[in-house]
Amino acid sequence: MADTESKRYIVVLAENKLGVLNRITSQLRKRNFNIESLTAGTTEKDGISRITLVFDGETTNTEQVVKQLDKLINITKVWDATSENLVIRETLLMKVKSTKTTREEILQFVQAFKAKVHAVYKTSLILEIAGSSQRIDDFIEIMKGFGIIEMVRTGATVLNQKE
Amino acid sequence: MADTESKRYIVVLAENKLGVLNRITSQLRKRNFNIESLTAGTTEKDGISRITLVFDGETTNTEQVVKQLDKLINITKVWDATSENLVIRETLLMKVKSTKTTREEILQFVQAFKAKVHAVYKTSLILEIAGSSQRIDDFIEIMKGFGIIEMVRTGATVLNQKE
Repeated sequence: MADTESKRYIVVLAENKLGVLNRITSQLRKRNFNIESLTAGTTEKDGISRITLVFDGETTNTEQVVKQLDKLINITKVWDATSENLVIRETLLMKVKSTKTTREEILQFVQAFKAKVHAVYKTSLILEIAGSSQRIDDFIEIMKGFGIIEMVRTGATVLNQKE
Repeated sequence: MADTESKRYIVVLAENKLGVLNRITSQLRKRNFNIESLTAGTTEKDGISRITLVFDGETTNTEQVVKQLDKLINITKVWDATSENLVIRETLLMKVKSTKTTREEILQFVQAFKAKVHAVYKTSLILEIAGSSQRIDDFIEIMKGFGIIEMVRTGATVLNQKE
């Protein structure tokens, strides 16, 4: 996974039509652009989806990505949202091994990271954390030491922080 | 958008190879399956991505979705994760109109929903909320009354709550 520093965030507004997501991934596939994460969800406008694509800026020419996606039908707007004022958020769900001896230490990290505990079992915990991709990466690194059984992250979503 | 009750959550584990996301969306496009939301991110296993697809269970035969995706190369596992024990989480970022008179009321809702404030401007607020899709839908409904300027949601990610 690329450094947070080198990540580029491309935002696409598209008509919520059958096949639009496929046109996007096809176009990127054809040009050999490798998507690091993708999220697609509804917006404040009926019938309009917002798709956030994350690329490694060191290996991907995102100017070209924007240009290629801009050509497609049913795409309303495409832009490279990467900037210092970007709010970047994603959610991670994780099942981590825990024993009588490790549980307390894990829970200390949970508190420090303002994560949440969904369930406590004899041999595992189910945790949730929402935050910047960097913060989530850091949390994963620490939890690796305890043994991650299963995890899933949404991929990043972004909003420009300006009035 | 479909009722939370009728939503079906399909989880795909796939090799993190160029084009795998495209094969998934192509296959679903061919069969006219309409994806409500999609998230794709890394997992605890190197080289393996986890993709969460949400469908409206009333209009989509998700047994067929699983069957169709299971045929594809680079797909390690596909299953319908929908169950009562599912932890369903997503993140919403939102810019909402706020004035001297409405700001306090909005902030009360923020507190009630355990949302977060990222930025406060003269005429707007930037908010974040993570939770179940239902909780996020409820929050959006309330904020519509104040005027949503821009919003983006990650789409749902799920983990089975069992030991």
